[in-house]
Order: sequence, then structure tokens, then C-alpha cells
Amino acid sequence: MAPTSTITGFTVHDVRFPTSELLDGSDAMNPDPDYSAAYVALRTSDPSLSGYGMTFTIGRGNDICCAAIGALAEMVVGLSLDDLRSDLGAIATRLTSDTQYRWLGPEKGVVHLATAAVVNAQWDLLARHAGQPLWAFLSDLSPEEIVSAVDFRHITDALTPDTALALLKDAAPGRAERRAGLLAHGYPAYITSAGWLGYPDDKIRAQCQAGIADGWNAFKMKIGRDRDDDVRRATLVRSEIGPDRRLMVDANQVWDVDDAIAHVHALAEVDPWWIEEPTSPDDVLAHARIRSAVAPIKVVTGEHAHNRVMFKQFMQAGAIDAAQIDGCRLGGVNEVIAVLLLAATFDVPVCPHAGGIGLCEHVQHFSMFDYVAVSGSLDERMIEYADHLHEHMVQRLDVHDGRYWAPTGAGLGVELEPESLATYSYPGGTYWRSR
Amino acid sequence: MAPTSTITGFTVHDVRFPTSELLDGSDAMNPDPDYSAAYVALRTSDPSLSGYGMTFTIGRGNDICCAAIGALAEMVVGLSLDDLRSDLGAIATRLTSDTQYRWLGPEKGVVHLATAAVVNAQWDLLARHAGQPLWAFLSDLSPEEIVSAVDFRHITDALTPDTALALLKDAAPGRAERRAGLLAHGYPAYITSAGWLGYPDDKIRAQCQAGIADGWNAFKMKIGRDRDDDVRRATLVRSEIGPDRRLMVDANQVWDVDDAIAHVHALAEVDPWWIEEPTSPDDVLAHARIRSAVAPIKVVTGEHAHNRVMFKQFMQAGAIDAAQIDGCRLGGVNEVIAVLLLAATFDVPVCPHAGGIGLCEHVQHFSMFDYVAVSGSLDERMIEYADHLHEHMVQRLDVHDGRYWAPTGAGLGVELEPESLATYSYPGGTYWRSR
Repeated sequence: MAPTSTITGFTVHDVRFPTSELLDGSDAMNPDPDYSAAYVALRTSDPSLSGYGMTFTIGRGNDICCAAIGALAEMVVGLSLDDLRSDLGAIATRLTSDTQYRWLGPEKGVVHLATAAVVNAQWDLLARHAGQPLWAFLSDLSPEEIVSAVDFRHITDALTPDTALALLKDAAPGRAERRAGLLAHGYPAYITSAGWLGYPDDKIRAQCQAGIADGWNAFKMKIGRDRDDDVRRATLVRSEIGPDRRLMVDANQVWDVDDAIAHVHALAEVDPWWIEEPTSPDDVLAHARIRSAVAPIKVVTGEHAHNRVMFKQFMQAGAIDAAQIDGCRLGGVNEVIAVLLLAATFDVPVCPHAGGIGLCEHVQHFSMFDYVAVSGSLDERMIEYADHLHEHMVQRLDVHDGRYWAPTGAGLGVELEPESLATYSYPGGTYWRSR
Repeated sequence: MAPTSTITGFTVHDVRFPTSELLDGSDAMNPDPDYSAAYVALRTSDPSLSGYGMTFTIGRGNDICCAAIGALAEMVVGLSLDDLRSDLGAIATRLTSDTQYRWLGPEKGVVHLATAAVVNAQWDLLARHAGQPLWAFLSDLSPEEIVSAVDFRHITDALTPDTALALLKDAAPGRAERRAGLLAHGYPAYITSAGWLGYPDDKIRAQCQAGIADGWNAFKMKIGRDRDDDVRRATLVRSEIGPDRRLMVDANQVWDVDDAIAHVHALAEVDPWWIEEPTSPDDVLAHARIRSAVAPIKVVTGEHAHNRVMFKQFMQAGAIDAAQIDGCRLGGVNEVIAVLLLAATFDVPVCPHAGGIGLCEHVQHFSMFDYVAVSGSLDERMIEYADHLHEHMVQRLDVHDGRYWAPTGAGLGVELEPESLATYSYPGGTYWRSR
């Protein structure tokens, strides 16, 4: 028998794209993002096999995430693919329970972002080794294997290994049928490219028209700067997309409770489907109060919900109508699975956060796995989509007709093109050196 | 008029003490801490005036905090002391609302720890410039000035500038009398040095006896490893300290809800005053459930509560009996003031977290300021004390007869001895090079 491949080392890259120059991605809290990746490649003893992971930032501080990734990646060197395959929770548990790094979170902030990058690189390795896209690799795991990947610490008041196993076993018989449906029909999505806060009106109008022409039926716009201007811009978008398409609005955390409620009431006339991030992402109780005050308009959050304990509380408190998981804010695939299981338990749809760089690529796998093997449902589910920076990925995203189409390449699909690395590495890449 | 001093630069030091060798500080979640400081000195145009701040870690990752401190400290170079004195919130707001660093938290994890170090160094500068210990400098601010230091974003559902101002004005007439009382009688405290999890029984017994001889009437021990062993060790401590002294127990987050309740019930026979950190520091709802199940035993947390939004929720949910603020987990003095105001509003006593390196030095100022100018009360208040590593500070702590005595030196008092820096800087200090 051939010896199994072993992780022999890693490289970390600070990669930054100058998106602030175009105001792509501008919102009320984040007016000038430079979409960036703190990017890691785990090398193995097999020269043809590497695993890629990243965390997403919006510029400054990407170097700090890279430093943390380097420190954590040291801890996985020497592990074999057999080790990883036989204990799917090994790396995630090792990284999140390190007795000294844990102090810097715990399970939040820079160290948790870095954990996501390393953990996801491990899953990329496993899926590549199996020759499967990650969603399919995950969907072929047994219920027992899936449960073994989850750290149940601090969530057993809502989800235990036994209840998780029962849920997954209930969903198992329908896996093949849903997988066939997914391959045939894709996964529903919405688009966020229309309404960045920095865009002028004519660009918003043109983006709406282009979106409709491309088959989109759900649009998200950024609000939260000025109430009257928000209503004016939302009315503009609603007039472009008509009464039957969904319009979501996203405040990116700028309000306190009373402000949020007043603002959403003012927007009711444009019939928003949901209000996203109305206030602090740490504030479970505030979301619950806002949700009860603005119903039937939905309240959603999650792109800054840093771990399974936060999502558990949002669900226990009845504070959200959908869980917007982020593929590298949570501590990687293992914690994503925990949140998918919690969401299925509480019957809360998962509508992932995406955009940025690499986020669409991540979350498509998680939503597709959720559909095939966990919740078994597409009801009220949508993956976010934003149409920028995908050209930097080796494996190209397939999004058309308002849907994500199941990726077929092996792994997680966040490997960056060598030329993009050479151009946008910070500060040594050709783009940044020429500035 | 002489030109005002200006911040001209800074130095950052990674300082680590090899405490894991003695098991000082060992607990159920953190068995082998190397108490460390990510330490910053803000230099000014006045060669005799520098401001010192730090954040506390337990070893690995201290370098990551130092990197973040360096990045944030860049943002304050060029500010004058006049700028800082006329806008007490200027630096805190600038650091916490940076449009790109914010993504890495927001207001949590490494970047927030680094924020604390830089913000506290600014307050050290201001108090040194005024020639006052920080507690006195803060206690001499007007109610309006204190309110101006607070970022009310995301807490106005519990505390507004107006309600904060009213509270401070109510407390103002009693300031002088309480200040005289503080100087005469000190501030109540409890000691944690007796019951670290790694200590053998005879060391626990000896530490209890030494504590009693030194005048301590409240003792905290670590639990959370094994239930029977916890009860046995707690019974040992109780038998040493007698029935009338307070015994607090600290689980350092290791339990889920049901475990915590069962464990505390098992410990009821030793009459614990409080259970500290029974579960995840992010879990407001879990603390509320545990508290209602174990009453009248108190439930406390806070050393890992990362910002004012978390403390607000713990208080709104009735989840804690005391708020254990940490001087450099929260984002520095400004956010500490916000939490003191919230605690006074909810009538929750503040019993700060201390120990480690530098933490006792920080929090004595905050509790004394709270007594003189905010809550105006000592009821059920105690500052934690642990008797190690204080010899590395230029300004020595004055703790005796079970109380903290008001520091008299100017500033925050966390400047490290030059020799300690030379010895324990990592990895270049003489101690670490000789290993």
C-alpha cells in the first residue's frame, strides 16, 4: 500500500484587491473596503496535492490574519490525510482549544478567522484527495461521520450528538433524490451588486436592469446612511424591479434598537423582504426586539456572528428569520456544520453571506450540503451573490439564471490564480509596487 | 504658552513570563499559561513623558497582539495632549471605527485587545500629564466630560447620554466624602492565589492559612476538572477558611448548561458565594438559565465579555450577579466607563477580573473611580487579587489587610521595570535566550 500523504508545510499570502477605488462593496459601516484574502496553501508529501483556504477581510489587518494563520498552520504540519480522514474534528478541535491562543478569542476575532482558513484548507485537501467537490464529499459522509466533525461544547442545551444524529438519519433517505434535483435545477440565489451605497442612481438603475435581464428575481441593496435617502433609493430599486421580485435591505449594523425599528417602518412602503444586520452582531436581545416590532418584515444577521454559540442564541431567542452564515467567519467547515444542524433543529433557513473575495465560492458548498444531507429543504433559502473578483479563482463559479449551479471541480474551490497572486500580493505584488 | 506635547512615536514589546513552569494561574480551561503582556509605550515630544499600556495574554499569540498594537498605534501618532484632553473619546472612537480593522472584530478578539492597550496608554499619558493617579484623574472629570468619553452606539436601548449624565450628576455631591473614605479605608478585595487547579493539597492548605494570616476574608478557587475532586478540594478550602469567610468558585467556561447546574448543586454543601464563568462567555441566555437554577448562589462572568454590548445583554437578561470587567479585554478606559455606567443603571455590582500580569494594576483604578464618581457604592463589590508578578511594575501595588489601597503615583501604573523588559522580552530577552 502506498504511504499516505502528509502535510509537510504551508505558505501564507496577504492578497489585497483595490476595490475601494470603484466603491464596489461600499456600505454604511464599511465605506471603502479593499477586498482581501489571508490565504494559505497546505503542502503535502504528494507534490500534486495541496489544500487551499483563506479568510476574508476588507484590507488593513489582513497581515495580522496572515500572522495568525501562520501560527496555527504550524500546528497541523505532520498530520497525514489518514489522520484527518479518520478524525474529521481533529484539526478544528486542536486549533480552537489551544490552551494559549484560545485566550485571544475565545472563538472570535482574528484567531477564529485564521482558524477558518486552516480548517477549510484541510477540508479542501480531503475533498481533492477524494476527487470530489466539497459539497459532494460532505454529502457522502455518513450521519455518524458528520456528527464526529462537530464540537458540541456549549451547544448541548440546543443540540446534542444524539439529536444531531437523529436529524441526519431522518434526512438520509432523500439524499439521492435531492442531489439529482440540485444537479438539474441549481440552488436559488439573490444578487447584491445593484445597490452598493457608493453607487450613483443611474448605476443602480442600470444594475437592476442588467440583473433582471440576467434572470435575477431577488435583489439586495445597502441602506443605513440617511433615512430619506434610503427610502428614495429603495423606491428607485423597487420601481425598477417591479412589485413581485424580492427586495432585501442591509444596514450593516449602523442602528440602535429604536432607530432600527423607526427606519424599517419608514421603509415598509417599498415592501422589503428582510432587513439585514439592523444592529450590533453581538446583540441577540436587540435583534429579538427589532424582529417582533417590524414583523412581517424579516430580520436576518450572521455575517459577523462569530461562532455556533451566537447562532444558537439567535435561534433560541427567536431573533432571526434566517441565518447568514459566513464560510470563514465561523471557524471553518466543522463549525458551519454545527450551525447547519442548529438551524435545521430550529427550522431557521440558512441564507449564507457571500460577496467579497472567495465567499461565494465557499458558501455554495455549505448550502448544497445543507440541502442534500441536513435540512433537506430549499424553502426560503437563497445564497447571496455579488459579481466581482471571481476571475481570480482557478475554479470558476457557475451562477446564471438567478441560481448557483453545483460545482464539479474537486475541493473547496478557493485556489487563487497564480497571476492574481503575483499581481495583488501585498505589498510586494506588481499592482501594489506600481502604486 | 509652551507648545503642547505631541505623540511622536511608540515602541511595542512582546513580554512573556514563564509562569507555566510553576502552575501559577492553572485552571480547567487554561492549564499552562505563560502570563504575557503585549506592551506599548507611546512616546511624546516631551522626553520625560511617555504613556504605557498593555493587553494581557497567556503566551502564544502575544506576538499577534503586538502586531495589532503596532498597526493601531500608528493611527495616534501626531495627536497632541490638547487634542486628547479636549476630546476624551477621540482615540477610542478612531480605533474602534476604523473602516477596515473593524471587520476583524468588530470590537472583539485580537484587534480589540490591541485597542485596549493603545487607549489605556493614552489615558496613562493624560493622567501622568496631570500628575494624578488615573482613578483620581477620572474622578475629577465633570459628568459631561465622563459622558463625552463613552461610545453609546448599540447601548442606547439601556443607557443614553442623558440617563448617563443624570446618574453621574446624582453621584457628584458625594464624591469628596467617598474619596476621603477610600483613602482612609481602601477598597475591598478577594484573593485567588489559594486554589489554582494545578496546586497539590498541601499547597492549597498552606495558601489558605497564609491568606487568613494576611487578613483575607474572601477566597477564590478553580474548579471544573472532575466533580468529585472539585467537591473534595472545595471542602478542603472551606475547612481551612471556616464558615464565615467567602469562598468563590471559578469554572473557566468548561461546562454546558445542564452540567453547570448539576455541578453547582453538588458544590452547594460548601456554601459558595458565586460560581464564575460556568459556561461560554458569549452565552447570555445560558447564564440566565444557570442563574435561575442555582440561586441563591450567585452567577458571575466578564473576564471574556468582549464589549459593552455583551455586558448590556448580561444585565438586560438578568444573567449575572456581578460584572467582572477586565481592564484590557474591553477596549480600554472608555469602554470600561460605559460598562460601569450600565452596571450602575442595572444596579449590578462590578467585581473586576484581575491577576495575570498588570490586571490588578489596571482595575484598581476602575473600581475606585466607580466608587467615587459612578455607582457610589461598595456593597457586594470586591476587586480580585493574585499575588504574583507585581514586582515587574515600576509602581508597586499596595494591597494589604484584604484591601486595595489607593495608588498615589501618576497614571495607570502599568509601566514595566526596565530590567523585567530586558529579561522577559520574547524571544530576545535574557531569560528566553538562555533556555
